[in-house]
Amino acid sequence: MTQLGFIGLGIMGSRMAANLLKAGFPITVYNRTPAKARALRDAGAGWADTPAALAEQVDVLFTMLATPNIVEAAAFGEHGFLKALRPGSLWVDSSTVNPTFSKRMAAAANQAGLRMLDAPVAGSKIPAENAQLLFLVGGDAADVEACQPYFKVMSRQVIHAGGHGAGSALKMVFNLLLGQSMIAFAEALVLGESLGLDRDLLFTSLTGSAVAAPIATSKRPKIEAGQYEADFPLQWLQKDLELASLTAYEQRVALPVTNVVKEIYQLANRRGLGTLDISAIYAYLHEANPPEH
Amino acid sequence: MTQLGFIGLGIMGSRMAANLLKAGFPITVYNRTPAKARALRDAGAGWADTPAALAEQVDVLFTMLATPNIVEAAAFGEHGFLKALRPGSLWVDSSTVNPTFSKRMAAAANQAGLRMLDAPVAGSKIPAENAQLLFLVGGDAADVEACQPYFKVMSRQVIHAGGHGAGSALKMVFNLLLGQSMIAFAEALVLGESLGLDRDLLFTSLTGSAVAAPIATSKRPKIEAGQYEADFPLQWLQKDLELASLTAYEQRVALPVTNVVKEIYQLANRRGLGTLDISAIYAYLHEANPPEH
Amino acid sequence: MTQLGFIGLGIMGSRMAANLLKAGFPITVYNRTPAKARALRDAGAGWADTPAALAEQVDVLFTMLATPNIVEAAAFGEHGFLKALRPGSLWVDSSTVNPTFSKRMAAAANQAGLRMLDAPVAGSKIPAENAQLLFLVGGDAADVEACQPYFKVMSRQVIHAGGHGAGSALKMVFNLLLGQSMIAFAEALVLGESLGLDRDLLFTSLTGSAVAAPIATSKRPKIEAGQYEADFPLQWLQKDLELASLTAYEQRVALPVTNVVKEIYQLANRRGLGTLDISAIYAYLHEANPPEH
Amino acid sequence: MTQLGFIGLGIMGSRMAANLLKAGFPITVYNRTPAKARALRDAGAGWADTPAALAEQVDVLFTMLATPNIVEAAAFGEHGFLKALRPGSLWVDSSTVNPTFSKRMAAAANQAGLRMLDAPVAGSKIPAENAQLLFLVGGDAADVEACQPYFKVMSRQVIHAGGHGAGSALKMVFNLLLGQSMIAFAEALVLGESLGLDRDLLFTSLTGSAVAAPIATSKRPKIEAGQYEADFPLQWLQKDLELASLTAYEQRVALPVTNVVKEIYQLANRRGLGTLDISAIYAYLHEANPPEH
Repeated sequence: MTQLGFIGLGIMGSRMAANLLKAGFPITVYNRTPAKARALRDAGAGWADTPAALAEQVDVLFTMLATPNIVEAAAFGEHGFLKALRPGSLWVDSSTVNPTFSKRMAAAANQAGLRMLDAPVAGSKIPAENAQLLFLVGGDAADVEACQPYFKVMSRQVIHAGGHGAGSALKMVFNLLLGQSMIAFAEALVLGESLGLDRDLLFTSLTGSAVAAPIATSKRPKIEAGQYEADFPLQWLQKDLELASLTAYEQRVALPVTNVVKEIYQLANRRGLGTLDISAIYAYLHEANPPEH
Repeated sequence: MTQLGFIGLGIMGSRMAANLLKAGFPITVYNRTPAKARALRDAGAGWADTPAALAEQVDVLFTMLATPNIVEAAAFGEHGFLKALRPGSLWVDSSTVNPTFSKRMAAAANQAGLRMLDAPVAGSKIPAENAQLLFLVGGDAADVEACQPYFKVMSRQVIHAGGHGAGSALKMVFNLLLGQSMIAFAEALVLGESLGLDRDLLFTSLTGSAVAAPIATSKRPKIEAGQYEADFPLQWLQKDLELASLTAYEQRVALPVTNVVKEIYQLANRRGLGTLDISAIYAYLHEANPPEH
Repeated sequence: MTQLGFIGLGIMGSRMAANLLKAGFPITVYNRTPAKARALRDAGAGWADTPAALAEQVDVLFTMLATPNIVEAAAFGEHGFLKALRPGSLWVDSSTVNPTFSKRMAAAANQAGLRMLDAPVAGSKIPAENAQLLFLVGGDAADVEACQPYFKVMSRQVIHAGGHGAGSALKMVFNLLLGQSMIAFAEALVLGESLGLDRDLLFTSLTGSAVAAPIATSKRPKIEAGQYEADFPLQWLQKDLELASLTAYEQRVALPVTNVVKEIYQLANRRGLGTLDISAIYAYLHEANPPEH
Repeated sequence: MTQLGFIGLGIMGSRMAANLLKAGFPITVYNRTPAKARALRDAGAGWADTPAALAEQVDVLFTMLATPNIVEAAAFGEHGFLKALRPGSLWVDSSTVNPTFSKRMAAAANQAGLRMLDAPVAGSKIPAENAQLLFLVGGDAADVEACQPYFKVMSRQVIHAGGHGAGSALKMVFNLLLGQSMIAFAEALVLGESLGLDRDLLFTSLTGSAVAAPIATSKRPKIEAGQYEADFPLQWLQKDLELASLTAYEQRVALPVTNVVKEIYQLANRRGLGTLDISAIYAYLHEANPPEH
């Protein structure tokens, strides 16, 4: 039977691996902080002490890591997995990375006799838990096909966007929109409330409206409670916007709004809001009492 | 029977007045460019040569004009309507203006013995035609109630947002979101296409997604055709963002993203795209072939 | 002998009036907060209880107030000075206001039989004290000529920029540059220090360089001391950028950078830095310890 | 006698190499487009067919290339110079690159038994020609000392900013300021002229003022002539701002203004202005006739 591996057990990865395990696939896991693997091991997942040790045991390896640098370290660093995978194995990288990086990884994998997909996901904590993610996949159709059984138990839909890097490209597009939609809504709330409009009226008017993205209005409970436990940490969205900006530079296109948006998230990040949910950008813009003027 | 008046017969006003007329309300109209009143007059609407002449004949006056300055001129200028309205008459201003202006107009109207509502609408050409607008209303509940028969034949919903100025406040919020949602989508498309993603794939992936506002993806036909006939002219959206920015200043809140967004629309405006639909911001960001780099 | 009046005794006005007094001109002063006039009265200045009472006694009236609204209230409000000035008197408005406002004031003054100059100044607390200001003047040449004796004792130079509003126009230009130059330098310092460059090295390298505005590097003592006593309060610079932005809108030009700059100052303003010197924008951008990343 | 090498003979490199040659140092040059070496060869410089062939002949190698990627290709690519340099040789990289890249290059050089300096320059075409550059140097003091004879004939000053990467760090700071100062001045001019102020008055008022950077006002002849032959091409400034932005991200600091500035240059770049002088950003912002409004 096909042996699965999963490296990266954060908010997303832990839930994705749990769904694979629940579906009956044999799975071995690794995480830099071993404690985060505890629940999965208790539920029957195997454990490997290094990425390389894990790679020796698996046919399909999923990675769900925070940044390109961390992916690169796990693949090529000491005890990295890339050399340890058997020829013909398939590496599925679900990390949010830039398309250029995905293409470089695919080229390195191919050179090592491996197959590769870039397969980031749209959706955060709750969709990950409920197997309602959306996979955005780049790579060969045959490899996408081979992964459908695994994708199926983690997601509601799979979009095969094109060749290597296309999944990451589409993910850049999604998160650019996510970042702008969230801050647009935050500015709208801040303006509306400053004018004395009721927050309840604002949410009710804008939810389901044509002008607001559904993800933004879905943050209502967090904003109303003033509790910003992360479904998607602000600092990772900031990173994704940085990658989108870098990608735009490589493609020689201008993204004036995206670039200012990423800096406002960075200001919030510097104020210590980085580990909170992306919706905390509302709190950042709303907070201070203005001085006399 | 209550006599209606309507001043301002542009893209929106002409369709709103037509719906009032179609519903059987007696209506007199005025427009700076008389030719635009032709169809309505042919269909049975009365005509007045000046705002003042119109005001003398009506009980409820609707205005749908482009900017606060134009509203002010129609109300207080030579042959202005404000002094000509009979005491107890009701002025319903559906123009998109800033809340401070609406409050000032309401105060002037009240001082002249008139009632007033600020009642801007969400929705552009097609919803105006199909009586599917959304009225965002500020003012006294009794006046809102009195207008329900008229609102009903022009809209799908009426939100009474609060006292004088609250309708304009909510409209600022809507159009801030509209302006940002449209440009966010434009940047997303530009980035995605620069990476070789298919436009059809992009639209299909993003339509109905959590991250994009429905209004943005609804612009697909215009963008695909490269034809930007205005449902909502870019230059008026730019003006609305300016009013939102001005309002934020009055309220001492910061809107960093809105402010850069309004300037990108202004750059497009200066390139001659102002009379095109707001979705032409995509064409603006997409257009030029980048130089060697 | 020509009687002078001075309304507005803040950081700038108090020093300008003191220089007029020191030069021997008979001067009567007014300030909303009377305590600020104490030193001038002790030194021999007259006092009037209202703008109107002051206006009745003077031939040339200087105003140095914070915003267009405050100027308007002083001129046209209860006990306003405009109706109280004798025909033929000269009103010199040194407040930083937008050119449209200056033109409107000049028109109102002319209609009342008065002469008017818009005469804002470049330079803050220290140049005001040392009579080293730069007057930027709009209005008739004869009126500029008539004021030279007064300008002379307050300034190092007078630029007659054109007709009514031209002084305010040039002041917009100066303060747009001031606002951008200061924040550019703040970002430069923040970046350089984050890279481990010595602050002393940075100041030494950039002072007198081609790329930095002299005003920015002159803020070295405040930044080194971390003490931001206001020569020019950040909140008034933010206001000036708002006026520049509004003016750009009226002129249909795009100022994308100015607009984002004004919002970053507004964020700093909301954090309570508004009454500090403009150089506190460095502290705003520098402050927080970034989170783990 | 110490043999010098010079790779990269663009606007800057050709002039710097010419000054070394004129001072009597034996020098061998290489450029991807050989034609650009013609004048130097005619004046006595040697020629090598590849970076590697050049490296075999020299003790001190200068590189002046456009981007980190191009430097990397020249150093490590096919016929790259790094392996071909003799142990103990010194590589002086005057390219404008990011500090992280400089540190990586220094580490690679050291590992190969080489010494290295990052030594970018402030100043463009004319200062390069007149040996009036400013060297911003990172690396060991002994190596800086060893290069003083070469720096001396190309520059007016040398700043030793610190260890490896410090020169590039300081260059990021300079060019961040350059980029912002230029666009601030462009916006100031555009606003001033839109208000009817005379361009001559504007230049005269702002030149030598406290609020404008000298480099900006020095662009007067180009702007007056509407001729933007490049002293420093806009597209390379855009690249430098991108590197500054990337560096800020690595250092977790926010540069909101720099980021919007880089995108406005990118918009200009896409309009085909990339090979013009940086001062063409004025033309970009000024150009279009605004639509009716």
